[in-house]
Amino acid sequence: MKERVFAANLELPDAGLVKLTWGNVSEINREAGVIVIKPSGVSYSTMKSGDMVVTDLNGETIEAGLKPSSDLATHVALYKAFKEIGSVVHTHSKYAVMWAQAGREIPAYGTTHADTFYGGVPCTRQLTPEEVTSAYELETGKVIVETFKEKAIDPLAVPGVLVYGHGPFTWGQTPQKAVENSIVLDEVAEMASMTEVVNEAVQPIPQYLLDKHFFRKHGSNAYYGQN
Amino acid sequence: MKERVFAANLELPDAGLVKLTWGNVSEINREAGVIVIKPSGVSYSTMKSGDMVVTDLNGETIEAGLKPSSDLATHVALYKAFKEIGSVVHTHSKYAVMWAQAGREIPAYGTTHADTFYGGVPCTRQLTPEEVTSAYELETGKVIVETFKEKAIDPLAVPGVLVYGHGPFTWGQTPQKAVENSIVLDEVAEMASMTEVVNEAVQPIPQYLLDKHFFRKHGSNAYYGQN
Amino acid sequence: MKERVFAANLELPDAGLVKLTWGNVSEINREAGVIVIKPSGVSYSTMKSGDMVVTDLNGETIEAGLKPSSDLATHVALYKAFKEIGSVVHTHSKYAVMWAQAGREIPAYGTTHADTFYGGVPCTRQLTPEEVTSAYELETGKVIVETFKEKAIDPLAVPGVLVYGHGPFTWGQTPQKAVENSIVLDEVAEMASMTEVVNEAVQPIPQYLLDKHFFRKHGSNAYYGQN
Amino acid sequence: MKERVFAANLELPDAGLVKLTWGNVSEINREAGVIVIKPSGVSYSTMKSGDMVVTDLNGETIEAGLKPSSDLATHVALYKAFKEIGSVVHTHSKYAVMWAQAGREIPAYGTTHADTFYGGVPCTRQLTPEEVTSAYELETGKVIVETFKEKAIDPLAVPGVLVYGHGPFTWGQTPQKAVENSIVLDEVAEMASMTEVVNEAVQPIPQYLLDKHFFRKHGSNAYYGQN
Repeated sequence: MKERVFAANLELPDAGLVKLTWGNVSEINREAGVIVIKPSGVSYSTMKSGDMVVTDLNGETIEAGLKPSSDLATHVALYKAFKEIGSVVHTHSKYAVMWAQAGREIPAYGTTHADTFYGGVPCTRQLTPEEVTSAYELETGKVIVETFKEKAIDPLAVPGVLVYGHGPFTWGQTPQKAVENSIVLDEVAEMASMTEVVNEAVQPIPQYLLDKHFFRKHGSNAYYGQN
Repeated sequence: MKERVFAANLELPDAGLVKLTWGNVSEINREAGVIVIKPSGVSYSTMKSGDMVVTDLNGETIEAGLKPSSDLATHVALYKAFKEIGSVVHTHSKYAVMWAQAGREIPAYGTTHADTFYGGVPCTRQLTPEEVTSAYELETGKVIVETFKEKAIDPLAVPGVLVYGHGPFTWGQTPQKAVENSIVLDEVAEMASMTEVVNEAVQPIPQYLLDKHFFRKHGSNAYYGQN
Repeated sequence: MKERVFAANLELPDAGLVKLTWGNVSEINREAGVIVIKPSGVSYSTMKSGDMVVTDLNGETIEAGLKPSSDLATHVALYKAFKEIGSVVHTHSKYAVMWAQAGREIPAYGTTHADTFYGGVPCTRQLTPEEVTSAYELETGKVIVETFKEKAIDPLAVPGVLVYGHGPFTWGQTPQKAVENSIVLDEVAEMASMTEVVNEAVQPIPQYLLDKHFFRKHGSNAYYGQN
Repeated sequence: MKERVFAANLELPDAGLVKLTWGNVSEINREAGVIVIKPSGVSYSTMKSGDMVVTDLNGETIEAGLKPSSDLATHVALYKAFKEIGSVVHTHSKYAVMWAQAGREIPAYGTTHADTFYGGVPCTRQLTPEEVTSAYELETGKVIVETFKEKAIDPLAVPGVLVYGHGPFTWGQTPQKAVENSIVLDEVAEMASMTEVVNEAVQPIPQYLLDKHFFRKHGSNAYYGQN
C-alpha cells in the first residue's frame, strides 16, 4: 500500500501537475483502518516509499516517522463523507488553480470533460475567517462536502472539486484513478478557458451528449475499454 | 500492417496529442478487405503491435483478441464515404478540441494552415438526441460526411474535421500522413486562436496565397520535397 | 560556495526559466566579505563551477578570471539594502516578464501565491533617462529598494519584484531558496494572467487566507514540512 | 560549412521552433561564392550533414544531390540585399507566426526584446496576386528588403522580420547567431502577446531604455559577455 501511494505521488511531477514539494496523494483501507499519505514538504526526487505516513481513520499517525502532509485533515474529511472513494489527490496544477482562483465552476464544454466528469466541476464557496483561522484543513474538507450536498452531486459522478482561491482535489476508487482524474481535470480546465477565448458565447454540451459519453465509460452499460 | 498501425498510434502520445488511453489510429486495405485499429482503452505504454484489432470493411472483428476502439464505427463510415483515404486518426488534442468545443471552423489564417488544409477546417453541426442515443459513433461518421458534402469540400484537400463538442478526426493516404495531419491541425488550431487574440479583426489569407501554398506541396505541380 | 552558486545557476535552464545565456544567481557571505556570481554571457552547457566570479561586498572582482554578470551591481545594491538575504536571482522567465512589461503588480489571487509571497509582487516605477544612462544596473537595484521602502514591504515576506519593462529579481536566504522563489514567481504570474482571462472581476484573496497560508509555511508557527 | 549548417538546422527542432520538416537554415560564403542550405522536405531525424545542398550566389545548385529548400530564393534575395549577413533562418515557430498571421509588427515591450532587436520587429505588407503567382519565394525576399528600406531599418540592428500571413525569417553573421535570433524572436513574440492580455494599454519601452539594452550587447561600447 505504501508502494502504491508512493508511486501515485511520483506520477504528479511526471504528469506536470506539481512543482517543488507541492501536491499529495493518499489511499484509505477502511477494513484495515488505515490511511497512507505523502509526508509534508519532502522533495519528490529524494522521497522513498518508506517515507509514506500511516495514520488511522481519524488521521492520527500510528507509526513513528515523518510528519504527514499538512492537508491530511482535508483527506480525512473527504473519506468520512464519501464512503465509496479509496484515494484522494491534491495538486496546484495550473489550469485547475486558475479556475479556483477565478471562483468559477468548470463547465462541461465537451466530451473530454464528459468522459470523466458528469457535469460541471464545482467550485466551493469562500471559507469564512472563522473557518480559516480555526481548523483550516478540516474546514476545507467540510466545505467540499457541503458543496456536493447542496448541489446534490454524486462524488463518484464528479470525482473532483475546486476549492475557492486555492486549487483542485480529485478522488477515485484507487490512487491510479484519482491521479488520472487530476490529469483530466487540468486538461479540461485548460480546454475550457481557451474555448471561452475562441467563443465567448459557448454553452455546455447538451445533457444527452453528457449522458452518452459518461455512461459509455461508467456504470453497468459501459462499453469503453476491455471489460 | 499491424506494425504500421501500432507505430502510428504510438506517435500520438510522442507528439503530445493524447493523454492516458485517448486517441486511435486505423488503416484500411480495401483490396484485402481489412481494417486494423487500436484496441479500446489500452495503455500506450503496455500496448503491443499484436494487440491491434483486425476487422472487415464493415468493422466486424475477424480475429479473436481485444475489443476494437469504441470509435471504430466512425472510422468505418469515413472509409465508406471517402474512397481515396487509407487511414483515420482521432485525438483529443487540446487546441483542436477547443475549437470543436467552441463550435467554430478553424479559418485559414496563414501558410502553415494552407500547406496542409486547402481552406478552413470545418466543424460539424451538433448531433441530435436521436443520433446520440441510437448509433452514436456511426452517426458521428455520418455527420462528418454530411459536412463535407454540404460544403462541397474534397476530403483530400481538407484532410480533417472538428466534431462539434467533441474533437478532431484527420485522415490521409497512409497512417503516417494521417498522424502528420493531426499534428498540423493542432498546431494551426493553436496559432489561429492566438492570432485572434493579437488581432480581433484578422481575416483569412487571400485565395491566391492559399492556392500557392497548397499546390506547392500537393498535386501534379508540387515542387516541395524531393519528388 | 562556487559549487553551490554554479549548481543554482544550472537550475535556471533546467526549470525552464532562462534561454541562451540569460539569467544569473549570486550568493553573499557577509562574514567572509565575498559575493560569488555567474560570469557574463557564458553558455550554461559549457560553464564550470570554477568559472564563477568572486567579488568583494562592493562588487569589485578579487580573483583573476571571467567578467562577472553585467547585473552584478543590481545584486550588490540588494545585498546592501536587504541585510537578511543570502542570494539573489535574476531571470527573463516569460510570465514574470510579461507582468513586468505590462507594468503591473501581480495580485495575490490564490494560496499558491500566498504560500511564498505575503501579498502582491510589486512592480517598480519606470527608470528615468538619467538613471538608465548613468549607472543603469546600480539604479535598477536602487529602484527595487525604493519600491519596497515606499510600499513598506518586508523583503523576506515578499522575496521578489518586477522591474518595469525588464523582468523579475527574487532572493532568499540560500541560492536554493532564491531559485525556488523564481520558479514560484513565474508560476503564479502565469496563473494570475489566466485567472483574469477566466474572470475579469477577480479580486485578491482575503487577508485572513493570505495570513493563513503564508504563516503555515513561514515564521515561528509554521507547521508545513518536517521541521 | 556543411557540418555547421547541418548542426544549425538540427537546433531548430531541439529549440521547439519547427515541427515535421518545416524550417531551414542557410549560410553564405561570399568569398568562396557558395551558399549551403537544408534540402527540401527532408526529415530532421534522418538528415545527414552530407545532405546539405551547395549552390552558387544566385542559388543555382553546383553539386549533384538533393533539391534545396523551396525557400532558397528568399534566402538568396536577402543575401544580395543585406551584404553584412552570413546566415538566414526560416521557421514556422508558433508565436512569431501568430503575429505574422495577425499582420502586426511586434512592439518592443521590454528589455528581452531590446537585447536583440533594436525596435519593433516589422511585418511586411501582403504580397499581391502577381507576386504570389510569379516568383513567389523571390518576391518574399523582395518584400522583406522593401520593408527594411521603406522603414529605414538596419537589418543588423533588427535581425528578423515577419512575412504577412506566413511567418518569421531571421538572420545573423553566423548560423548560430541566426538561430539564436529565431529563438529570441519567438520568445518575445509570446511575451508581447501575453503582455497585451495583461495590460491592453501597454506602450513600447522608451527609446533610452531600448538604446541602453541594445548597445549594452552590441557595438563598440558593448560590455555584456566576455569580450
